[in-house]
Amino acid sequence: MESRDLFKNISPLDHRYYLANKNLFEELSNYLSEEASTKYCVKVEAALLKTHIILNSHKDKENLLKEADSLENLINPEEVYQEEEKTQHNIRALVNIIKKHVSDTIKPYIHLGATSVDILDTATSLKIRDVTKNVVLKLLMEIEELLIDISSREAETPQVGRTHGQHAVPITLGFAISEYVARLGKSIIEITNKSKDLRGKLSGAVGAYNSTSLMVKNPLQMEEDTLSYLGLKPSEYSTQLVEPEYLLRLLLEMNVAFGIIANLADDLRHLQRSEISEIKEMFTETQVGSSTMPQKRNPWNSEHVKSLWKTFAPRVITFYMDQISEHQRDLTNSASQRFIADYIAGFCAALNRMKKVLSTLYVDKDNLRKNLSFTGDLVLSEAAYILLSCAGEPDAHEKIRKITIECEKNNKKLSELLIKDKDIWDKIDSQLKKTVGINASVFFSNPEYYRGQSVLKAKELSKKYRSEMLKIKEYIL
Amino acid sequence: MESRDLFKNISPLDHRYYLANKNLFEELSNYLSEEASTKYCVKVEAALLKTHIILNSHKDKENLLKEADSLENLINPEEVYQEEEKTQHNIRALVNIIKKHVSDTIKPYIHLGATSVDILDTATSLKIRDVTKNVVLKLLMEIEELLIDISSREAETPQVGRTHGQHAVPITLGFAISEYVARLGKSIIEITNKSKDLRGKLSGAVGAYNSTSLMVKNPLQMEEDTLSYLGLKPSEYSTQLVEPEYLLRLLLEMNVAFGIIANLADDLRHLQRSEISEIKEMFTETQVGSSTMPQKRNPWNSEHVKSLWKTFAPRVITFYMDQISEHQRDLTNSASQRFIADYIAGFCAALNRMKKVLSTLYVDKDNLRKNLSFTGDLVLSEAAYILLSCAGEPDAHEKIRKITIECEKNNKKLSELLIKDKDIWDKIDSQLKKTVGINASVFFSNPEYYRGQSVLKAKELSKKYRSEMLKIKEYIL
Amino acid sequence: MESRDLFKNISPLDHRYYLANKNLFEELSNYLSEEASTKYCVKVEAALLKTHIILNSHKDKENLLKEADSLENLINPEEVYQEEEKTQHNIRALVNIIKKHVSDTIKPYIHLGATSVDILDTATSLKIRDVTKNVVLKLLMEIEELLIDISSREAETPQVGRTHGQHAVPITLGFAISEYVARLGKSIIEITNKSKDLRGKLSGAVGAYNSTSLMVKNPLQMEEDTLSYLGLKPSEYSTQLVEPEYLLRLLLEMNVAFGIIANLADDLRHLQRSEISEIKEMFTETQVGSSTMPQKRNPWNSEHVKSLWKTFAPRVITFYMDQISEHQRDLTNSASQRFIADYIAGFCAALNRMKKVLSTLYVDKDNLRKNLSFTGDLVLSEAAYILLSCAGEPDAHEKIRKITIECEKNNKKLSELLIKDKDIWDKIDSQLKKTVGINASVFFSNPEYYRGQSVLKAKELSKKYRSEMLKIKEYIL
Amino acid sequence: MESRDLFKNISPLDHRYYLANKNLFEELSNYLSEEASTKYCVKVEAALLKTHIILNSHKDKENLLKEADSLENLINPEEVYQEEEKTQHNIRALVNIIKKHVSDTIKPYIHLGATSVDILDTATSLKIRDVTKNVVLKLLMEIEELLIDISSREAETPQVGRTHGQHAVPITLGFAISEYVARLGKSIIEITNKSKDLRGKLSGAVGAYNSTSLMVKNPLQMEEDTLSYLGLKPSEYSTQLVEPEYLLRLLLEMNVAFGIIANLADDLRHLQRSEISEIKEMFTETQVGSSTMPQKRNPWNSEHVKSLWKTFAPRVITFYMDQISEHQRDLTNSASQRFIADYIAGFCAALNRMKKVLSTLYVDKDNLRKNLSFTGDLVLSEAAYILLSCAGEPDAHEKIRKITIECEKNNKKLSELLIKDKDIWDKIDSQLKKTVGINASVFFSNPEYYRGQSVLKAKELSKKYRSEMLKIKEYIL
Repeated sequence: MESRDLFKNISPLDHRYYLANKNLFEELSNYLSEEASTKYCVKVEAALLKTHIILNSHKDKENLLKEADSLENLINPEEVYQEEEKTQHNIRALVNIIKKHVSDTIKPYIHLGATSVDILDTATSLKIRDVTKNVVLKLLMEIEELLIDISSREAETPQVGRTHGQHAVPITLGFAISEYVARLGKSIIEITNKSKDLRGKLSGAVGAYNSTSLMVKNPLQMEEDTLSYLGLKPSEYSTQLVEPEYLLRLLLEMNVAFGIIANLADDLRHLQRSEISEIKEMFTETQVGSSTMPQKRNPWNSEHVKSLWKTFAPRVITFYMDQISEHQRDLTNSASQRFIADYIAGFCAALNRMKKVLSTLYVDKDNLRKNLSFTGDLVLSEAAYILLSCAGEPDAHEKIRKITIECEKNNKKLSELLIKDKDIWDKIDSQLKKTVGINASVFFSNPEYYRGQSVLKAKELSKKYRSEMLKIKEYIL
Repeated sequence: MESRDLFKNISPLDHRYYLANKNLFEELSNYLSEEASTKYCVKVEAALLKTHIILNSHKDKENLLKEADSLENLINPEEVYQEEEKTQHNIRALVNIIKKHVSDTIKPYIHLGATSVDILDTATSLKIRDVTKNVVLKLLMEIEELLIDISSREAETPQVGRTHGQHAVPITLGFAISEYVARLGKSIIEITNKSKDLRGKLSGAVGAYNSTSLMVKNPLQMEEDTLSYLGLKPSEYSTQLVEPEYLLRLLLEMNVAFGIIANLADDLRHLQRSEISEIKEMFTETQVGSSTMPQKRNPWNSEHVKSLWKTFAPRVITFYMDQISEHQRDLTNSASQRFIADYIAGFCAALNRMKKVLSTLYVDKDNLRKNLSFTGDLVLSEAAYILLSCAGEPDAHEKIRKITIECEKNNKKLSELLIKDKDIWDKIDSQLKKTVGINASVFFSNPEYYRGQSVLKAKELSKKYRSEMLKIKEYIL
Repeated sequence: MESRDLFKNISPLDHRYYLANKNLFEELSNYLSEEASTKYCVKVEAALLKTHIILNSHKDKENLLKEADSLENLINPEEVYQEEEKTQHNIRALVNIIKKHVSDTIKPYIHLGATSVDILDTATSLKIRDVTKNVVLKLLMEIEELLIDISSREAETPQVGRTHGQHAVPITLGFAISEYVARLGKSIIEITNKSKDLRGKLSGAVGAYNSTSLMVKNPLQMEEDTLSYLGLKPSEYSTQLVEPEYLLRLLLEMNVAFGIIANLADDLRHLQRSEISEIKEMFTETQVGSSTMPQKRNPWNSEHVKSLWKTFAPRVITFYMDQISEHQRDLTNSASQRFIADYIAGFCAALNRMKKVLSTLYVDKDNLRKNLSFTGDLVLSEAAYILLSCAGEPDAHEKIRKITIECEKNNKKLSELLIKDKDIWDKIDSQLKKTVGINASVFFSNPEYYRGQSVLKAKELSKKYRSEMLKIKEYIL
Repeated sequence: MESRDLFKNISPLDHRYYLANKNLFEELSNYLSEEASTKYCVKVEAALLKTHIILNSHKDKENLLKEADSLENLINPEEVYQEEEKTQHNIRALVNIIKKHVSDTIKPYIHLGATSVDILDTATSLKIRDVTKNVVLKLLMEIEELLIDISSREAETPQVGRTHGQHAVPITLGFAISEYVARLGKSIIEITNKSKDLRGKLSGAVGAYNSTSLMVKNPLQMEEDTLSYLGLKPSEYSTQLVEPEYLLRLLLEMNVAFGIIANLADDLRHLQRSEISEIKEMFTETQVGSSTMPQKRNPWNSEHVKSLWKTFAPRVITFYMDQISEHQRDLTNSASQRFIADYIAGFCAALNRMKKVLSTLYVDKDNLRKNLSFTGDLVLSEAAYILLSCAGEPDAHEKIRKITIECEKNNKKLSELLIKDKDIWDKIDSQLKKTVGINASVFFSNPEYYRGQSVLKAKELSKKYRSEMLKIKEYIL
């Protein structure tokens, strides 16, 4: 095995982020490394081999099938690479090496009827399905569950709702987090479904089953049989390639989930601004925030997630470009497709960091409360306008808008000015008593009462997605 | 109505491509123009108004509901724009104008409980759903049906399969086209489903139903009732915005379809190269190919489609960026989202052009046949290797590879050299008789016999997607 | 003239943003509309015509040259479009129309020796050069001058410096703004230079001067002469196309400037957060912030700029894709290049909005001061560590870091704890006296004294770029 | 040193493309690996240390300066990583480790006055400058010289010019290649200049020289002195970061060069199509083209280059996104910027492959000639029209256009039909004699005579860029 000082690697994925996510990246390596590529190609060659053994009803069938199954452990990628130096063709090299390792009886069946891409595209589908199931979905679900936990726990914690960075009307922190429960939850379901629908092929050089038609009556059946060993179905149509859209749609959906995580990271970053400080990322005692400013506590984990999103999200352009392959295929998707490995690893690194942030997130209830009353009771301007309207006032919005301008000019509370206009105040008061059951004085002293369905939504979504995640757990475990 | 010389417009969509696709763009204008934006917002305001009328069990209910329904025809966008100059807020402007046009009884209900984005996001979902149904899907299906026609008609027309731009093994033209039947067919189904799942909202300023909770016991029901007038369901969760992913996924899928069309355009472009000339775009008698080279006949329509793909496909980056909105929303998706109109119009322009290409495509069977035999019978090298392998020869690939090198060096046919090696030739011959039922001489003189399941696949896919399209027709008609 | 209700246009550029930027867009229309395209092509045809007149030493030279010069006003785009319906070729159509309008003597010279793209690519360079000079640069310079004004005016206004959204060390507002003076200033210079280096061509169908070589001894001279009428130089090499990189580099640099403006917009957005409020966008008395929350004052102009950046910045992908044209050219850059008009208009709309923001920007000095002391004197932790280090303390960073943790825990000022450790305090005090000339008590009570070279940098950069802008003014006026 | 089986790496850059470009990637590792990052940071810390030593006029100055210079070899990245596990801050970890290795006298000066990013951003500029100079430019120049060689050698080799994939008019192969001589040549010059203008900083936490202002009278001078040890100039302005545009513009220009190489790759791919075959990539005797089609010779190297372009070119979006950093900086450019290493490595891999293609490119003169006469003498239609026009015929284009249609219909040569119309033929003949000096029969039998200035341009550009490259060689050697 050729080994190498990892500090000499070029991609941050193979040193810095490997070290920062060691267990995770070791696991990813089982699906995304070059070793894994070879291993997965051998799996596909073994499936084809088994099909041939069955088709030829060999008398020694049982032993030969066992030999096929054992192939995976016999081949090492380095040997294949050495052979490739001669053939300049990776699959032909693999085939030559496999032939070296098998008994004479089955030598002629190795790769027989297949074109390289039958092996490669099928192996790609297989390993992306596996890494999605065993790593990506696992991480996503851990995040989803952390979100559900926070959302449930903080379902009733008051927070000011913000639009345009401006205080708008009250919500609860759990409600704010349940946005991500809902959005990420749906994306997890989509990723699951799309990963299950990746496809393989055994239709030959141009997808028309030319070679297998010389061997069997029903080459489509032969394709189905081979792929069924791997738990895959055939591409509905293939050129030399599996239709690119099965994989494309999965990657696009991963990028959807990535965008949701990035949005969450941005929210968390801004909630940690010095002036806001509603939450904090965990900070160890020995940790240094700045090499020169000793007091600094930076939201660097959330920033890191956002930065990874900036790195990887634009790569969807490459995924879309790879839809185009001239005629029965050109090779211009070959190198580019290899970098899907980087994309998935980068996505997982971001997920892993977000998991860390969420699992140790500190909620500062004092600051949450302080910020909610930052603008006095101005966050209830909407309520005042609505109550007044419901009480029959036709121009309520304009009336309240003018009062709020006066509040700002003279630094007054909204209720101070409202109470001066007996007509308005009485209307609001009686409307409040009727619908909410409290009087105006109480209402304007407790902005957090004006939280709408925040609690209900936080709880219902938590419940729904806890149950959805159970279903997915059944698949991935 | 402020009107304007269209040659003074800036976007090519509003002059050159408008003129080139006049009927199409007039229709798009019903959904994507500023006039349409206003009209759709009025539809949503009317739905909310009707909810209020019902909720308040007005005695004059029937007439008031009729008044609400008539709103759509009363409001013109120019009036709204003039009001916006004062308010600097487009929905407040609209509300003011609507109030001018309705009877006093219902004035107070206009917009009551809604935030601007309740109206805007719901209107967006509505108009994108409608334009997808009435324009995009219609065009896509016309293309799909043209592809099915060609694929069926040319199911048996021999063509050389090409990989890496090199002659590989024979297929049929119908088989090549059926690639696009299958890929586009699936994308059409996805677009249909995703467009049906666009969502609206009536959950107020931060999505927590604060204001409507002051009015009714069950604000979620009020939201459902309002949206049901429009045939929409509520966003599972909303901030000030509908969850962005409902729309995002539809746009991503449109871009998938766009990529498929671009791939087809590239295939058609290259099949029209001087040296290949297997197909031709229609050329009228008076048409000029070049202002200086009188003989030129350029594949300019296919080139145009590819060029539009280059223009619009990268815009998915903006769609993904619009997933991120800070806290309960920032406004940085406002301008960007307006340009979805451009995207859809550009996509439709490409579809319209592709429709034109396909509906008048000229197939040059002479050149198809000539190209198939361009490399003599070398396109049968694979067949030779497979047949030899099946006859038990362990090193068949290497043997044939060496013979093909000799062919090229000495400019010989493959069969000329094969026949010289009696052992090889006999094996191939007997294998052929056994599996295909013809002898080697016939086989090597007729490369088109080696077409695998080309005909079958072309026919089956045509049949399947004709039936799928019927189902979608039921939805769009 | 075919005119059209502008509310029926599809692109927001041709209705909403046209109306919001009417004067600007009317001016852009002179360069970017279809009418302008035709006008610029006529300019190029006229230049070629003049070259022919001179080359043929016509006895009636003076009058014929005048006729050539008058062409621009004779041709209207609609007539050309009608002809194009017949020819299906835009330049051949133009040539036919020009011929109709000129005297018989010069008819044969029209377009003689040129290929369509000689005209089109030269016209594109010409109009992009002109729009850059007359519109883009003018707007950019207005912004730059506003930035210089603010930076000079607020050179000494204290502000807290922020990294990671956390308070770091003090600066001044003028210093913060001078970041944009420097970055945008350099970009303006680059845009100027690159726009001056756009190129034309008259090298025929494949760039080898085939046709003009049949007419003149020195076709390269003929190209130079023709282009010199337009103030352009020839592309160093051309295929059918001018080398794409002249234009590409200009567009990339516009996108650099766009990014700088977007960064500024983000800074301004966040400085307007409720909790920060250091600046405000102007808000008129009648303006409405929210249709439902009467108190809202949103940073919607800065948000709009950011949103336009999200819309247009990713289009550089298309610009890069257009570098690739097969062999002596394919047409796949034709449609895509037309949309450069949209890009430039979108960029200008963003610039116009930023100009508005900056020209009415309200600076809230109270809040600036309040925020600077938000964390007491903790923003001086760096100063404490540096002063202590300079006084010879080897472990200063760690010592101060621990004290800051204590400050946070016990809600103390930094100076309160520092003063308790006589050794530390004395060292800091004497170091301060030595280097800054003030004592420690004064220093820790006035964090704004710790502003480094903020004032100097703000002033020097303002001075430098005022002078740089004068040079560019000379070019554009 | 922690080492690792390279087949377990995730990024193709760290296994497959490492193995395929071993020498190249070993060299890149000196600048782009994590080891190199640490090494370059130490270089910067050493420069700062030297400044402090000089500023403090130490009596032991000479020895201390030597100690500073030796630092680079004392620090290993693994030790730093272990320390980082404690500090969670990479530069603070480095500083701690450096302090361990230096004498007590200089311990207090380590990092004094600097913020982490002073070190990091300066180190980045330094290493990108070095890798550009020592690797990127070297590769680019080798390609440029190969292009110049081919262009000179084939300056007179006839080839048909192609537009829209259609035969247009004749050129020479050398002329076609000189397109890339000119385009790439200019890009090389730009890359050189931009890499020389990368900048460093020593302006502290927010760029205002707060800390260094406590130490020295002229902190800007201190910055200049420190950077001058490294051959860098200061960023004109800095926040915590160097202005992003210095690096951005270099990366954008690398992507310009990448686009040019990709265009060349596309040209080469298509010239290798079975039906065209004007050039061939080298193919070794033992190389396999397809695992199933023994006759295949694929243009896989050119395809590989195009595929790498698809992978890396869209990453400019990330580069542009990294322009935006809130206020005095946020950290969202930290992870993303690390991946510049991947971009440069990917670019170099593409260059290395293109170098291989060009250095062994096989030119098939027979096929070049055959293709030139593929459409008989129809590639001379333009010449016919021009000659006829010059002879005074006003409607020459239309006349010839109609004749070419007749040619195609009846499968005739152009000259066959022209000669039938005595008037036309005589005009053309006498015009030819006058301008080119040969008669019509000779001309129409030798389409390659109609090559315009192909030879001149090929030779002149070769000469010019040979001389330009010499200048750059002086810089890089």
